[in-house]
Amino acid sequence: MALEKVLKGACIIGQSGGPTAVINASAYGAIRAGLDAECITKVYGAAHGIKGVLDDKLYIMDEEDPEELKYLLNTPSSELGSCRYKMKDPDVDDTDYRRILEIFKKYDVRYFFYNGGNDSMDTCNKISKYCQKVGYACRVMGIPKTIDNDLYGTDHCPGFASAAKYIATSCMEVAKDATVYDNPQITVVEIMGRHAGWLAGAAALATAFGSGPDLVYLPEVDFDLERFYADVDKVYKANDGKVLIAVSEGIHYADGRFVSEAETSATDGFGHAQLGGLAVKLAEALKKRTGAKVRGIELSLLQRCGAHLASGTDLAEAELAGRCAVESAVAGKTDCMVAFKCSRNGGAYRCETELLPLSEVANYEKKVPLEWINAAHNGVTQDFIDYALPLIQGAPERPTEMSLPRYAKLKKVLAK
Amino acid sequence: MALEKVLKGACIIGQSGGPTAVINASAYGAIRAGLDAECITKVYGAAHGIKGVLDDKLYIMDEEDPEELKYLLNTPSSELGSCRYKMKDPDVDDTDYRRILEIFKKYDVRYFFYNGGNDSMDTCNKISKYCQKVGYACRVMGIPKTIDNDLYGTDHCPGFASAAKYIATSCMEVAKDATVYDNPQITVVEIMGRHAGWLAGAAALATAFGSGPDLVYLPEVDFDLERFYADVDKVYKANDGKVLIAVSEGIHYADGRFVSEAETSATDGFGHAQLGGLAVKLAEALKKRTGAKVRGIELSLLQRCGAHLASGTDLAEAELAGRCAVESAVAGKTDCMVAFKCSRNGGAYRCETELLPLSEVANYEKKVPLEWINAAHNGVTQDFIDYALPLIQGAPERPTEMSLPRYAKLKKVLAK
Repeated sequence: MALEKVLKGACIIGQSGGPTAVINASAYGAIRAGLDAECITKVYGAAHGIKGVLDDKLYIMDEEDPEELKYLLNTPSSELGSCRYKMKDPDVDDTDYRRILEIFKKYDVRYFFYNGGNDSMDTCNKISKYCQKVGYACRVMGIPKTIDNDLYGTDHCPGFASAAKYIATSCMEVAKDATVYDNPQITVVEIMGRHAGWLAGAAALATAFGSGPDLVYLPEVDFDLERFYADVDKVYKANDGKVLIAVSEGIHYADGRFVSEAETSATDGFGHAQLGGLAVKLAEALKKRTGAKVRGIELSLLQRCGAHLASGTDLAEAELAGRCAVESAVAGKTDCMVAFKCSRNGGAYRCETELLPLSEVANYEKKVPLEWINAAHNGVTQDFIDYALPLIQGAPERPTEMSLPRYAKLKKVLAK
Repeated sequence: MALEKVLKGACIIGQSGGPTAVINASAYGAIRAGLDAECITKVYGAAHGIKGVLDDKLYIMDEEDPEELKYLLNTPSSELGSCRYKMKDPDVDDTDYRRILEIFKKYDVRYFFYNGGNDSMDTCNKISKYCQKVGYACRVMGIPKTIDNDLYGTDHCPGFASAAKYIATSCMEVAKDATVYDNPQITVVEIMGRHAGWLAGAAALATAFGSGPDLVYLPEVDFDLERFYADVDKVYKANDGKVLIAVSEGIHYADGRFVSEAETSATDGFGHAQLGGLAVKLAEALKKRTGAKVRGIELSLLQRCGAHLASGTDLAEAELAGRCAVESAVAGKTDCMVAFKCSRNGGAYRCETELLPLSEVANYEKKVPLEWINAAHNGVTQDFIDYALPLIQGAPERPTEMSLPRYAKLKKVLAK
């Protein structure tokens, strides 16, 4: 076996896409491993992901107090800043790539770590291929992140489980609150996930523990309004007019139209186009139909930044993913994304990292398997519960200050 | 000093009005004290508050497993069920009162404990006065409860602090998330409190700890749209287009119209009447004005049922209030509400119970003192922070099952 050549140089760590409760744990894992690696001469954090590279805005992580850096484990959202920036195909327009190369050379960057979802893995893949093409030695690794859990090739994505735990816990609480009066009340909770229903499905964890939604709708199957009304009517009758419904923001009709964006129509009972989201829209339609008191609740940003409810398993795995990316690159790997390979034999959960070629993961979306959605299309099966439950386990120690969260306070010294 | 006559008989405990994260802790305190009191022969829990009395639906608390009852401390919302039932003036129509007396006599009820807000104290007061008038010996005590914190005569109300802690923590998280991109984003968080701004003010706790709203609007002062726009513009310019705003649902114009209900008008930029609440409405108006990405977030029921974030201080005080009501009644007191008398000398918080005549507290609303609102009417002063901060302290042990909350599972055996 040939020994990998030691590659000496600086590294850049970037955060991209929608933030999560634990993306900073991955940053911490990567930064700490970078600071600890002998061959890594400097650790830079890109301000707002790849845009920080393009704009020459890099924070010197070596300048941070190591104790303060640890608070990243407790800090939601992307502390280095994020972006949603779609890289062009370098064969069409290589302006950005030439600029990135210029910055890489300026700071002698030989390691590039990018933490994000599908689009970010695409960015990662393109930069990696470009560096190879122009013969610039740079090891590029993707670190998975997305509450949507839709990255291909990995058992799950860091960030998903904490959002799932937030959703399940909140649904348990709302189920208690929304049934407290002795008159009918229909409550609709809207959950993130435009194309994949992993998060909406997590609401069913609440039901599995005795206090959760009666009906759960995922975007993997077409939404049928008449069937929805029939579902609601059935629960309404059986349950003294109390109905709790969880819907993915991405539910759509058979013709592909998102229910959230569907046009005014007398038949669907939605009345004129309304702002305020899908939950309010469905709730109002059910109010017209039943006369019940209704309430639409959108979990909005709360579900993805709920660090105070982070899953201990998720937090540890997020950190592990960041560290694994750096350690693998130092060991000679490149052009890969860190992924999780898990087993759940009889409840004994095990998780190991593996590396997948970036080209295999970029731009694919992993959806909830159809066989994990019940036959009535208004809930998930036990297989889904068995999949998700191990991921939300554990409550990490959360540093607080006067009983409020204590977040990292970084100096963010810019490289010149 | 004359010794109080021992009054032997059953007691009823009822929960009323909007639930909170800790109202069941008050129920637990009262139930436990009731079960422990020698002169209390039976402890009944009224199903859905006073309606359970009127409907003869009383749960026998003596039948519950004492260990299971303890889980009430961990269970949000009103486990016995709640109601919003306004009692008529007995001089106008005494039907309900005669029925209540009938039930009291049927079960030999000599103690009545009612846990709620302003309206519930009114109910309590009317029942107490009626019993006195007809010469039926029954000791009646009110137990305060309301996230709105607007009960008169008490330093604060059980339930407020846990909601405040939820709001502050959530605002800290949202502030991190809503500023993550490098483009302008305006986020509006809508907080409960129709007439009193205690909860909206609690959002400022987040800011005091480094990550919270830039602007906070309370219903105690008139809302001026032009001034609001000017406030937002100022932060927008100073802060690279990132603005986080917290508003009470009850903000209103000088003429009394709620901003949430204000009519369509070209001048206010709101366009046609919209569903989805105040946050979305304000966010959309700011989008039109600035072109920024906007988001409206309504904390909705989440803020009042967020038991997983309950304040340890609140939980202990809620239980204390329930216990104090029963023990005081057993000791001969009646016709009172339990209140808190607190001192905060230099951060050393102390809280003691006292009893206030029901007639003095019913139907008054306690608002945030105007001197605790800043001169610009877009925030609170340090006095507010000093008031609220001690109340949110402490994180109680929260029993879980597979990392999700473990709630009380009561048998709820009905009395016949």
